[in-house]
Amino acid sequence: MIPATHNEAAPSAIKYYWEDMVVGSRRDLGSVQTTKEEILSFARQFDPQPFHLDEDAARESVFGSLCASGWHTCAMTMRLMVDNFLNDSSSLGSPGLESLKWLKPVFPGDTLTLHLTVLESRPMGKRPDVGLVRSAWELVNQHGAKVLYMDGYGMFRRRHRASD
Amino acid sequence: MIPATHNEAAPSAIKYYWEDMVVGSRRDLGSVQTTKEEILSFARQFDPQPFHLDEDAARESVFGSLCASGWHTCAMTMRLMVDNFLNDSSSLGSPGLESLKWLKPVFPGDTLTLHLTVLESRPMGKRPDVGLVRSAWELVNQHGAKVLYMDGYGMFRRRHRASD
Repeated sequence: MIPATHNEAAPSAIKYYWEDMVVGSRRDLGSVQTTKEEILSFARQFDPQPFHLDEDAARESVFGSLCASGWHTCAMTMRLMVDNFLNDSSSLGSPGLESLKWLKPVFPGDTLTLHLTVLESRPMGKRPDVGLVRSAWELVNQHGAKVLYMDGYGMFRRRHRASD
Repeated sequence: MIPATHNEAAPSAIKYYWEDMVVGSRRDLGSVQTTKEEILSFARQFDPQPFHLDEDAARESVFGSLCASGWHTCAMTMRLMVDNFLNDSSSLGSPGLESLKWLKPVFPGDTLTLHLTVLESRPMGKRPDVGLVRSAWELVNQHGAKVLYMDGYGMFRRRHRASD
């Protein structure tokens, strides 16, 4: 994982508000390299299935080799999203995802790069200071193969309140 | 988190195959109690947003109090699923989810209980030895409120191959 350089108590000033999430726009949100130690550590804590813990069991599984928990892949993706976008934004959290696809296994040593594309954007009816954004998250490995796809929502404070 | 008692190298014998995932059946898959230390540890590693790291920032956020990363909630849910079902099953992994909803924040000390309901089941066309199951995962807190809902797929080896 990326070393934690974020200053916990004092997030940087807000650069991106709801208005800056333009439909069709695409952002490159950096890369992370996986390690076997981190894959094993996450699996021991949260997903102790044999193919995430043991080389021999993984070799006999559909994956063919030790691979990361799908939830670990999501968590690493979130870290890229937070470090390279959300902590500079007016993000207020997420109500969820429309879909999540684990497309390919993630192996130790893989380099994963995140791209975010804004699919939809709308004001929130009851909150004149908040807008909702729907985005596609694509995580691609060093061979150019998509390993994870997510289509999800985020709530962001608006730079300018809607007029009543 | 639950202490790791699973024997990594030698998973228990298979009790549940695809045929045992009957549409409409519901399983209770145990509970986990969250701790502040684990919420902070996960957030530092994967989701360092102020409302997951800092009491004061959380108090001023929409959540009102320090709360777990949504991805941490998913990871804790997966641990219940693995310990109380998947590692006794013929599971071959998951291609993804149809939807994921973070319905309520999860706070330190919350007790979360997982229920799984089978929604759909079908053979896999090209694999006479494998079936696909679609299930609803509901995670409920100690007040009876749903905090997480997921609708997702799992692939399981069949007890009996389809006849050709």
